[in-house]
Amino acid sequence: MKIICNQKILANKVSTVQKGVSNKTTLPILKGIFIETLDNKIKLIGNDLDLGIETFLDAEIIEDGSIVIDSRLFGDIIRKLPDSLVEITTDSENNICITCESSEFKIKGHDPSEYPKPEEVDENRFYELPEELFKNMIKQTVFAISQDESKPVLMGELLEVHDNDINLVALDGYRLAIRSSNIENNVGNSKVIIPGKALNEVNRILSEEEGTFKIAFTDKHCLFLIKDTKIITRLLEGEFINYNQLIPREYNLRVKVDTKKLLNSIERASLLAKEGKNNLVKFSIRDDNMTITSNSEIGNVHEEIPIVLEGEDLDIAFNSRYFIEALKILDSDEIYLELTTNVSPCILKPVTGDNYIYLLLPVRISANS
Amino acid sequence: MKIICNQKILANKVSTVQKGVSNKTTLPILKGIFIETLDNKIKLIGNDLDLGIETFLDAEIIEDGSIVIDSRLFGDIIRKLPDSLVEITTDSENNICITCESSEFKIKGHDPSEYPKPEEVDENRFYELPEELFKNMIKQTVFAISQDESKPVLMGELLEVHDNDINLVALDGYRLAIRSSNIENNVGNSKVIIPGKALNEVNRILSEEEGTFKIAFTDKHCLFLIKDTKIITRLLEGEFINYNQLIPREYNLRVKVDTKKLLNSIERASLLAKEGKNNLVKFSIRDDNMTITSNSEIGNVHEEIPIVLEGEDLDIAFNSRYFIEALKILDSDEIYLELTTNVSPCILKPVTGDNYIYLLLPVRISANS
Repeated sequence: MKIICNQKILANKVSTVQKGVSNKTTLPILKGIFIETLDNKIKLIGNDLDLGIETFLDAEIIEDGSIVIDSRLFGDIIRKLPDSLVEITTDSENNICITCESSEFKIKGHDPSEYPKPEEVDENRFYELPEELFKNMIKQTVFAISQDESKPVLMGELLEVHDNDINLVALDGYRLAIRSSNIENNVGNSKVIIPGKALNEVNRILSEEEGTFKIAFTDKHCLFLIKDTKIITRLLEGEFINYNQLIPREYNLRVKVDTKKLLNSIERASLLAKEGKNNLVKFSIRDDNMTITSNSEIGNVHEEIPIVLEGEDLDIAFNSRYFIEALKILDSDEIYLELTTNVSPCILKPVTGDNYIYLLLPVRISANS
Repeated sequence: MKIICNQKILANKVSTVQKGVSNKTTLPILKGIFIETLDNKIKLIGNDLDLGIETFLDAEIIEDGSIVIDSRLFGDIIRKLPDSLVEITTDSENNICITCESSEFKIKGHDPSEYPKPEEVDENRFYELPEELFKNMIKQTVFAISQDESKPVLMGELLEVHDNDINLVALDGYRLAIRSSNIENNVGNSKVIIPGKALNEVNRILSEEEGTFKIAFTDKHCLFLIKDTKIITRLLEGEFINYNQLIPREYNLRVKVDTKKLLNSIERASLLAKEGKNNLVKFSIRDDNMTITSNSEIGNVHEEIPIVLEGEDLDIAFNSRYFIEALKILDSDEIYLELTTNVSPCILKPVTGDNYIYLLLPVRISANS
């Protein structure tokens, strides 16, 4: 193989595929990046068997070929080279020579035929989705994914597509986040569980600009095609919880409150709450006012915020973290809290629009605590 | 005590004194910030007995008093409060109440009479020094301080002042950095060893603008007065090494080289060098060219840079880190390397000016390594 390409572009593309490379792998070749010539481009792959990232860049191909090169070292070298043309040559023994201006690196590579490439997905099965929308859908749900390895199915998000409707759902046993959307083109019918790690990578690569990307499903994989970059992830197996039955359809009281004010007050209250075990903050809902309090050995805090209340008064307690994480990603200036009793779930939703529901469980507290 | 002050200014000043608070202290009260009213100001102190930081801010004093409050919690609370007026009141039991708009915190404080305040220094003994100059002097030397706790005297820098001359010197047994300066006003005669930790704090607080700060010495302490912030540090005891005798007065060859090019080449070479044990990079100096090479199990690198050589050819090896750290802080576009043999010290200095000398020891290598 002999190729010439631009240093800045190569450095950028190497950073993209490095996110697919695992350092913890037991298969040493997976610590490398796979490089292959392809017409007037080179293809780079990073792959940990669960998640693969492929990307392409323009290059002058002097001799076709392929190689696997240690990901960390290759990235460090390419990033440190001057902004100029980089030449990479390999021989039949997998020796690599990287030159750029007056720098020359000679490194031992790995046999590219031993590299396990990610699954191929038939491009006919692709649907188009808006980039900015899907990025936002991930951002508003992915934080609610479970980190508990004993429940692997909850370490991913349920993606439901049905004609023009699309739902992304995460839950961890304490809270549930559902982001829905209605899109112009028909996206068929699928119901898959995508690992959180893959969604975080997709979120990183999706831009906040207008435009579309492509998505395709097989029985065991999901593929995202975002400009020149492909992300192939293994799907999680198992049955996702029937989340619809968890959502209460009625409430006894509804609170309208300013999102930013509520976030700031809970964040301050949590400074003392985090000294305790539960991150416990207590809400007292009365007429046009909500007080948020927290106690710990070192002191206590009392916050007041104006609200609009429909329904009865209520005292209820929550883990502050579950509130803070949701309030941070809501793009609505005002929200509703829909409540029933102090032991039943609280629903948090934007005042306008019906595309987001966040449900969280209260913390049961004794009458005199 | 009852005071009212601005949230933003208080948050800023708390951050300043927090750098003087140690989390590792065995004296629990030193985890607190000392607060005291003083005319129309409040004084804040953070102090770990070796290093104390004091600062002042304007406040409305409604009732005089003092208190000690947990540093981390106080800082977190003040930073999270809205940009408004903060009222802090204490009672005779050292209970603290912090209010700001509709937030109210009640926290238990500590008895201020038990707080060990930093040493006072007689203000008549102050000398003035230019801020930007001294900041630069610290930056160009402090990285060469030893981290070896078995040689405490080398964990600080020697500050020599003599009439209009001032020297700051750091050495760690492998390299030596000397920054000298000639200033307008006479600064008397002193020779003290200032702990690296204190110099890093002074560097952080000094601005890069024109202006002066004040410095004073006692037998055991050094005090820096930078606008309304005082830094009081205990001096290190012991005799500093007679560094002048370490500097070779002659050389066999002198290399003129571009600072940035040399830095970039050594940084690239060190990507392979750091895989070995010594961070070893080898220089081959020949006529108008210097090659920098490094080998490790995973490969090798060869860099070339143009030089202007006076004197003989030489092959010599170094720990790349010692070169990189010095080249990063030099503000001269070109430097001289002055060399004698491949086992004697190398001097690195700017091509223009004689206010900086950096000496580093080579690594001895066998002829065929």
